[in-house]
Amino acid sequence: MVHGESFVIPTRGNSDIKNITDQVQKIVSNSKIMEGIVNISAVGSTASISTIEYEPALVEDMQDQLEKFISHTAPTRHGSTWGDENGFSHIRATFMGPSITIPVSDARPILGTWQQIIVIDHDNRPRERRVFVQVIGE
Amino acid sequence: MVHGESFVIPTRGNSDIKNITDQVQKIVSNSKIMEGIVNISAVGSTASISTIEYEPALVEDMQDQLEKFISHTAPTRHGSTWGDENGFSHIRATFMGPSITIPVSDARPILGTWQQIIVIDHDNRPRERRVFVQVIGE
Amino acid sequence: MVHGESFVIPTRGNSDIKNITDQVQKIVSNSKIMEGIVNISAVGSTASISTIEYEPALVEDMQDQLEKFISHTAPTRHGSTWGDENGFSHIRATFMGPSITIPVSDARPILGTWQQIIVIDHDNRPRERRVFVQVIGE
Repeated sequence: MVHGESFVIPTRGNSDIKNITDQVQKIVSNSKIMEGIVNISAVGSTASISTIEYEPALVEDMQDQLEKFISHTAPTRHGSTWGDENGFSHIRATFMGPSITIPVSDARPILGTWQQIIVIDHDNRPRERRVFVQVIGE
Repeated sequence: MVHGESFVIPTRGNSDIKNITDQVQKIVSNSKIMEGIVNISAVGSTASISTIEYEPALVEDMQDQLEKFISHTAPTRHGSTWGDENGFSHIRATFMGPSITIPVSDARPILGTWQQIIVIDHDNRPRERRVFVQVIGE
Repeated sequence: MVHGESFVIPTRGNSDIKNITDQVQKIVSNSKIMEGIVNISAVGSTASISTIEYEPALVEDMQDQLEKFISHTAPTRHGSTWGDENGFSHIRATFMGPSITIPVSDARPILGTWQQIIVIDHDNRPRERRVFVQVIGE
């Protein structure tokens, strides 16, 4: 059995981090799938999916670390060739990857108590970011 | 067909790296699934799953690199706000992600000769870490 | 329904980045699966799968960042213990992970307009790199 839904979430870009756990749980419920997996994918080349303990201080820590990893002011060949000032966005996204997959059991995604699902929009401007959620199982 | 099992593995924390290839292969065998995928997920917000050539020198190299990426002594807002001294653990985990998925063929996970499946427990203390293994296929 | 195929792609190593979107789309077409997921895995402990806007300037930016993250000249215990000069390759691969999974809908992998699927071969020499593509769905 396969059940897929996508949704759009507005972000501010610059590695804005949004908690999408409720949306994912809703889609898993809609699927009526009891046991299986759920794949959560950001559509596009400048966003990532991961998990975090979603509290404001840690969210800022993560953003600091992304800035330390590759600064939004770092000159890139992508920028100098195309005039796109979001080379840093692409590199953060390729490094972290576009998606995660986690188990579904008892009709719920398996997460720890302090573990939430997030989209990180690395792009350098506000976006309407599409997230695709695919549930597979029985 | 879906077959899921979880197990608990004791870790020392601080990006302790444990080889869980045997446990995953056992669960794939138990599933009787011949062709499909296996999803391996660390439950919680301070651990990651990946693969490595599991030999002691390289395991230490990986730990050095995680320390260089973000030190366990780096001050974090998470620490100063909540008194949780594991901000670095969360950031390492969010960066690397909580899970991997690999193919199953001929009733075995597809891995290279020198490629083992690992859990990395980034937390700053020993843990009993739960790993969930979900096999899907036919 | 499960459909798996693997292919081999020649790389130059040293985080050579190859666009494998066409190969993946072909295998998804061969599968006749309309809705589901596709898992793309690099076989071995020195390669990664991710997505990127595949244009030459950005590909070089990504390689620069991998070199900055851990240089191919960085001394490693893996190198000094075994004489394998590819410690950096392993660390890049473990950090980025061996695989990605993305949704399949309407018989196509879901990707953004500027998003291509890549294998990054981190090894320190040319390789014939095997990539396994597993499609699951209905």
